[in-house]
Amino acid sequence: MKKENLMQLIDVATGRKKADVVIKNCKIVNVYSASILEKDIALVDGLIAGLGDYEGEIEVDAGGAYALPGLIEGHIHVESAFVTPQEIGRLLVPCGTTTIIADPHEIVNVCGEVGFDYMVEAAKGTDLDIKYQVPSCVPATPFEHSGATITSKEIAGMLTKEEAFGLGELMNFPGVLFRDDEVMHKIMAAKNSNKVIDGHAPGISGNDVNAYIAAGIKTDHECSTVEEMLEKIDRGMYVQLRQGSACRDLEELIKGITPANSRRLVLCSDDRQPKDMLEKGDLDDLLRTCVKLGLDPITAIQMATLNPAECYGLSDRGAIAPGLRGDIILVDNLKDFAVQKVWIQGMLVAEHGHYLGKQESVSIDKVAGSVRVKDISMDKLNLKSASNKVKVIDIVPNAIVTKKGVAEVELTAEGDFVFDENQDIVKIVIVERHQMTGNVAVGLLRGYGMKQGAVAQTIAHDSHNIVAVGVSNEEIMAAIQAVIETSGGAVIVKENQVLASMPLPIGGLMSDQSGEWVGSKLEGMQQLLHNEFQVKEGVEPLMTLAFMSLPVIPELKITDMGLFDVTKFAFTAIEADKD
Amino acid sequence: MKKENLMQLIDVATGRKKADVVIKNCKIVNVYSASILEKDIALVDGLIAGLGDYEGEIEVDAGGAYALPGLIEGHIHVESAFVTPQEIGRLLVPCGTTTIIADPHEIVNVCGEVGFDYMVEAAKGTDLDIKYQVPSCVPATPFEHSGATITSKEIAGMLTKEEAFGLGELMNFPGVLFRDDEVMHKIMAAKNSNKVIDGHAPGISGNDVNAYIAAGIKTDHECSTVEEMLEKIDRGMYVQLRQGSACRDLEELIKGITPANSRRLVLCSDDRQPKDMLEKGDLDDLLRTCVKLGLDPITAIQMATLNPAECYGLSDRGAIAPGLRGDIILVDNLKDFAVQKVWIQGMLVAEHGHYLGKQESVSIDKVAGSVRVKDISMDKLNLKSASNKVKVIDIVPNAIVTKKGVAEVELTAEGDFVFDENQDIVKIVIVERHQMTGNVAVGLLRGYGMKQGAVAQTIAHDSHNIVAVGVSNEEIMAAIQAVIETSGGAVIVKENQVLASMPLPIGGLMSDQSGEWVGSKLEGMQQLLHNEFQVKEGVEPLMTLAFMSLPVIPELKITDMGLFDVTKFAFTAIEADKD
Repeated sequence: MKKENLMQLIDVATGRKKADVVIKNCKIVNVYSASILEKDIALVDGLIAGLGDYEGEIEVDAGGAYALPGLIEGHIHVESAFVTPQEIGRLLVPCGTTTIIADPHEIVNVCGEVGFDYMVEAAKGTDLDIKYQVPSCVPATPFEHSGATITSKEIAGMLTKEEAFGLGELMNFPGVLFRDDEVMHKIMAAKNSNKVIDGHAPGISGNDVNAYIAAGIKTDHECSTVEEMLEKIDRGMYVQLRQGSACRDLEELIKGITPANSRRLVLCSDDRQPKDMLEKGDLDDLLRTCVKLGLDPITAIQMATLNPAECYGLSDRGAIAPGLRGDIILVDNLKDFAVQKVWIQGMLVAEHGHYLGKQESVSIDKVAGSVRVKDISMDKLNLKSASNKVKVIDIVPNAIVTKKGVAEVELTAEGDFVFDENQDIVKIVIVERHQMTGNVAVGLLRGYGMKQGAVAQTIAHDSHNIVAVGVSNEEIMAAIQAVIETSGGAVIVKENQVLASMPLPIGGLMSDQSGEWVGSKLEGMQQLLHNEFQVKEGVEPLMTLAFMSLPVIPELKITDMGLFDVTKFAFTAIEADKD
Repeated sequence: MKKENLMQLIDVATGRKKADVVIKNCKIVNVYSASILEKDIALVDGLIAGLGDYEGEIEVDAGGAYALPGLIEGHIHVESAFVTPQEIGRLLVPCGTTTIIADPHEIVNVCGEVGFDYMVEAAKGTDLDIKYQVPSCVPATPFEHSGATITSKEIAGMLTKEEAFGLGELMNFPGVLFRDDEVMHKIMAAKNSNKVIDGHAPGISGNDVNAYIAAGIKTDHECSTVEEMLEKIDRGMYVQLRQGSACRDLEELIKGITPANSRRLVLCSDDRQPKDMLEKGDLDDLLRTCVKLGLDPITAIQMATLNPAECYGLSDRGAIAPGLRGDIILVDNLKDFAVQKVWIQGMLVAEHGHYLGKQESVSIDKVAGSVRVKDISMDKLNLKSASNKVKVIDIVPNAIVTKKGVAEVELTAEGDFVFDENQDIVKIVIVERHQMTGNVAVGLLRGYGMKQGAVAQTIAHDSHNIVAVGVSNEEIMAAIQAVIETSGGAVIVKENQVLASMPLPIGGLMSDQSGEWVGSKLEGMQQLLHNEFQVKEGVEPLMTLAFMSLPVIPELKITDMGLFDVTKFAFTAIEADKD
C-alpha cells in the first residue's frame, strides 16, 4: 500500500470522500462474532473502507442478499481439473472462491521448477488469487521415474520467491518420522523462510502425529475419521475437511465439529474436476453440504474464510472488515448459497455464474512437448511370466487402494499374457515418458471390465508416466503411440483406430481449452469406455488408471520400474510364487 | 532452530530418545478444542516434543494439577511498575506470565531511542519473554516538552530492529482520522515492516472506528462498554480486556463475551503496580476474576494464551502442543488458578511464588541522570494572576479526568496564590526537566486535601516533567530540588525536611530496587500523605498527580507550557475571566 492509498482509504472510511463502490441493502455475515450486520459496505482502491452509511460512485443494491467474505480454498491441485490456472479462475470465481492455496505438485513432477514458474505466470491471467506452495515431494517416491527431482536445496531456492507461499503437502511422513536427511533439509528451508508447511499424513496417530507436528507441519487434509481429526486438532493442526471430486470426507468429519474446535477447521477440495465445478460448484457447494448436514451456517462460512486466512497468515482477508481486501460475495441465503455477485479487490468479477474478470493466456511453450519416450519395440509389451499363476492388481471400486490378487492366466510360448473374455483381466503397461530411459513395465489388472481395445493416458500420479491398458499388444501400442503424438492427454483406441482423444499439451496434464471442453471430453470418453468397452460401473475409467501407478497407496501398484508391492515397499515379480 | 534440534525433537516425539523433562500426572488444558487431555508432556531443547506416554531425564509428578500454556500479557507498560524489565520478570513469572507485549512509551518519552535500547538490553536479564512495541506517540502531544521526539523516520528505523515487535498504541487517533502526515508515515512504516499496530481509541465508533481500523490498527484496550467492544470486534479488532491497577474494565466487558466472539478477545493489564503483582497476581488474577464472574474457564484461558498468540502472530506459543515453546504452567484448579510451577522454554523458572530463573542486571548509565533542570528562581513559582477569580483543576476521585473549576482565592500583591486552610486548594507546579528550557508552569489544584508540606515527582504522563504540589513556595521548591538531587523519583517535604523519598534513577521512572522495595516505599508515602498531610481518601496521592499533566484527558490539565483546557485543546490563562 502507498501512503496516498492509506489517506484515500481513511477519507472514504470517515465519509469525507465518496467510495468507488458501495454495496447497499445487504446482510453482512460477520465472521468475527458470528452475527449479521445490516450496513453498507464501502470499497475504495480494492479495499474495504468501512461498514456503515456510505455514498459511492457506483452503488449496488444487493436486494437483501447476504454478503460473505470471498471464499478461501484451503488446499487444491489446479492440475486435477485438467485446465490452466487462468481457466480455474474462470471456473471457481463464479462459485464465490476468491483465493486458493494450490500445490502444483503434478506439473512440477513433470516439468520441475519450469512447471512452477509457468503456474505462477499463468495465475497472473486471472483475478482469482492463487497462492502456490512449493511441492515438497518431487519425485514422490524413489520407485518411479519422474520428470524432475527437486532437491531440498532447490526447494530452499524456490521458497525465496515472492510467489512461493509455503511448502506443499509433506506426503513423505515416514521421511519425517525417521528424519530422512533430505526431508529435514526441506523442513528447515521452510522454517528459515518463515513459511507454512502443509501436511498429508493419513491415519497417523499417537507419538507419530506428535513427531509430525513437532517438526512444524501445520495442516492435514487426509483425516477420514472423527477420532483422527480430533487428535490432530488437539495436537495443534489445522484440519482441512476435504470434499472433492474423488475423496469426500466431509460427511464423516462433520460429526466431530463443535463450537469449541471449529476455529481450527478449514474446508478444501484437494482435487475437483471441471464438470463438478460447473454443475455443483466449489466451496459454495461445500457450504450447502455443511448446512444440509446440520452445521451452523456461520460456522461453515468461517471454515471457508476466517479460519483458512488465520491458518495461512493471510491477515489481509477472511472477513468483511475495514482495511481488508474487497473480496466479497453475495448469496441468496445461508442455505442454498446461490452466488449472485463476486468482487475481488473491489472489482465485480462474476455475476450469476458468469465470470467477468481478467482472463489472459500465457505461452505454454516451456511446459509443452513434455512427452519424451524412447522407441518402444512390441517385445517390451510382453508380460514375460515364467508361470501362468500370476499376481494381478485387483481394483477396489470407488477407491484408489487396490488388493494383491492371484490368477491363473493363459500364456504364450514367450510367457506373454493372452486376453480371455471370460476373465476380467487386462494388461496394464507403464511407459517412462520423461527421461527416455526406455523403461516399460507390464502387469495385469483385474476388475476393470474392459472387453476390447485399449486406453492410454499421461495422467498417472505422481510421476505421470504413460499408463495404458488394453486387450491386445497392438491396441495398447497404438494407444501409447497416439498419446505420445498428442504430447500427452488420454486416448481410446480400437483396432488401431483412435476413437477418442483429449490432448493435454501442458505437461501432459492440462488442456489449454475451457473447462466445458474438458468436462465434455472426459464425459464422452468415460461413456465410451463404459458403454462400448464395458468398463464396469463403479470404476471411473480414466481416474482409476491414474492411481494404478501410485506406489504409496496399498496394496499392489505398477510403476515404470516394475510391479510394486506397497505392503512390503518393494518391487515384486509377476509370478505368484516369487517375491 | 537448527537441523540437529529438529532431529532431536523428532527423536523425542517418536519416543526413540528420552525427553529432557517429562511432566506426568497432569490435566492438559487444550486451548484448540477447549478440552482436557490426561497425558504426559515431553520437553526437549526448550520445546514441547509431544503429548502421550514419555520418559525423561527429569520426570515431574504434577500431582493431578492442570497444565496451562504460559500466559501471554496482551498489553502492558513495564514502567508503570516502577521497576526494571528484569525485575518485572521476577514479579510476573511466578504469576504464570511467560510472555508480555510491552510498550516502553514512558522511558522513550524521557530518553528516546536510548530508552528503548535499555529496555531491550535489560529484558535479556530475565526469562520472561518481553516483546517490545516501538512507541508511536513521542511526544504524546505538542503541548508539552518531553525528553525526546521520535519522528516517523526514526520509527521506521527502529522497526527494522529484530527486537521491535510492532508499533505501540496509536493514541493519536485524531491524527489517524484527519490523516496527519507524520501519523500516516508512522503507519506506513509499520505496514512496510509487516508488524502489528496496536491501538488506543477510547469511545470512537461508527465511521471513525471504520477509519481507524482501515488504517491497519489491530487492537484496542480502551473499551469501557460492551457496545463499544462489540462494535470494535465486528469491525475486525482484537479487543484487549483491561484489568490493571488503575483501569478495571473487565467486570463490565465480560458481560458481552459469547462463545462466538471470544476468539477475538485478549486479557491485558496495561498498568500494574508491584504491590498488586505481589498480593493479587497478574493474569492469574484476571483468570480468577473471569471465572468468578461466570466465564467458562477455558474461554478465559484462551484469552490469555491462544488468542493473544494469534493476535500477535506468535505462532510458536499459546498452546500446549508439539513443536511449540515449552512455556507451561501448573495450577491447582480452574477456579483458584494458584500457580504451582512455571516452565519457560522447558526450564523450570518459578515454583510456588518463587522466581527461579535468570536475573541479571544491566548498566543503567545511559538512562540515569535524566533530570536536567535549569536553575529555578523562587519568582517562577509565583502564580501571577491578575484576578483573584481563578481557574482550578478539580480532581475527580478515582479517575484521571478532571473538571474545570473556578474559585476565589487570596492573592499577594504580586498576584501569587496564598494557601488557605479553609479552602481545599493547593498550588501545582510543572517543571520542564528534559531540555533545560527553564519552563515552569503554575496552577491550582482543588480536591487533593493536602494541608501541609509539598510533594514532587518525575512521574507525570506522558512527558514525565516534574510535577509538584504544596502549600508554600518554599516547600514546593525544596521538594523540586530534592527530586532533582535523587535524579528523579518522588519526595515528600515538610518545612524543608525530606520526610520520604523514592529515588527512581532510571529515567526518573524506574527503580533499580526490588518490587517489594518499590511497593513498600509507595505504600509508606501514600500513608504519610493520607495520614499526616491529609490527602483525601479516594485520591491516590502520587498517581493522581501523575495524570494532572496529561493534556489528552479532559478537562483542565497543566503542562510545563501552561494551563491547558483539553475541551478546547488550547492553553488558557489562570484568570477565570480570560480565555
